[in-house]
Amino acid sequence: MKPYAQSPLLVTFCGADIGPWRIVSATTVCGEPLSPAPRLWIGEGRDTPALPDARWSLRATTSNARYTAASELSAMQSKQEGLGRPGATRAALIPISKSPTWWGMAQDARRAIFEETSHHIAIGLDYLPAVARRLHHGRDLGEPFDFLTWFEYAPEAEPAFDEMVARLRATPEWTYVTREIDIRLARD
Amino acid sequence: MKPYAQSPLLVTFCGADIGPWRIVSATTVCGEPLSPAPRLWIGEGRDTPALPDARWSLRATTSNARYTAASELSAMQSKQEGLGRPGATRAALIPISKSPTWWGMAQDARRAIFEETSHHIAIGLDYLPAVARRLHHGRDLGEPFDFLTWFEYAPEAEPAFDEMVARLRATPEWTYVTREIDIRLARD
Repeated sequence: MKPYAQSPLLVTFCGADIGPWRIVSATTVCGEPLSPAPRLWIGEGRDTPALPDARWSLRATTSNARYTAASELSAMQSKQEGLGRPGATRAALIPISKSPTWWGMAQDARRAIFEETSHHIAIGLDYLPAVARRLHHGRDLGEPFDFLTWFEYAPEAEPAFDEMVARLRATPEWTYVTREIDIRLARD
Repeated sequence: MKPYAQSPLLVTFCGADIGPWRIVSATTVCGEPLSPAPRLWIGEGRDTPALPDARWSLRATTSNARYTAASELSAMQSKQEGLGRPGATRAALIPISKSPTWWGMAQDARRAIFEETSHHIAIGLDYLPAVARRLHHGRDLGEPFDFLTWFEYAPEAEPAFDEMVARLRATPEWTYVTREIDIRLARD
C-alpha cells in the first residue's frame, strides 16, 4: 500500500476468497455484522473495481486532516512509520459509522469531544511507531461506513494494539459510534 | 433542490442544451475554463446519472460542516433562508479548487486562514438572507473541483452578491485558490 497520498486515494477493501491477508477474526462491536469471508483483498485507485465475487466490498478515500492541529500533526509525523514494513505481518481493518447527532454538530463541538475530552490523537500517539495507520473516509461517498481505518503492526505489538482500541472505545467520542466491526488479519 | 440534507446528497451539475437555468455568463477567474454551454441541468442523488450529451458534468456532495463553530452555525441558521424561493430567479454556480499547500495544512492552520484571518463566515453572514447557499464537496470524489458552491438570490440582490464574491476574492484564503469559474444563471 502507498503511504499517505497528497491527493485523495480511493481504496476498495473486499472480503473474498483471495487476497494477501488472511482474516483471523471479525468481531461485531456494535451494529449490523458483515458476512464472513476467509481473506481480504485491497484495491487502490479509482480505476480498480471491486472483486466481482466478493462477499462484501467497502470503499473509502484518504483525505486531508479533519481535526488534527499543526502541533499534533508534527508530533505524529516525527513518530509514525509507513505501511508495508516487512515485520508488520498483522493488521486490523476497523470500519466505523457515527450517528446523525455527531455529523450534525459544528466543527468546534466535534473537535472538543474528539480531542479535548476523548484524547483520540493523544491515545494514538502512545502507540507510535509500533502501530502504523491509514484513515479512509466513506461517508461522502455514500458508503455504509463513515470510516475505514487500516492498522499494521508486528505480532508482538498485538497486546498494545488491543489496549489502544480498548482505550478509544471507553471515550465519550465512542458514544457516537453506531456501527463498528473489528477485523483482524495476518499476512502469510 | 432540497434543503441541507442530514445525509450527504450527491449533486450533478451539467452544462447542457436543456435544464431549468439559462447560463448568462461563465467567467474563468483563474485556471482552466469550462466549455461553453447554453443551460444548466441539476440532478440530485446517487441514482441520477449525468446527462449523456452534456458539455461538462461536475459532481459533488453536501456534507458536514468543516470549519463552522457552533456560535457561527446558529447565527447562520437563524438568518439563512432555503433554496427554491419563488423570487430567487438568479443563481450562481462557483466551482473552486485549492492548492496542495492548502490541503496539506493542519485543521487549525486552515481554520485560522479561513475565518480568523479571512472572515469567510462573517462575510457570508452579511449577505443573509438575501443570498441562499449550498456547498458541495468534490475533492474526495476525485472530481476536478474541490468545491461547487450554489447560490440563489433575487435579481435586485445581484450587486450585493457581486460585492460578496469580490470581498472573498480579496482575502488571504483566496491566495490558495488555483481554479475558479463564476457561472451566473437566470431561471426562465
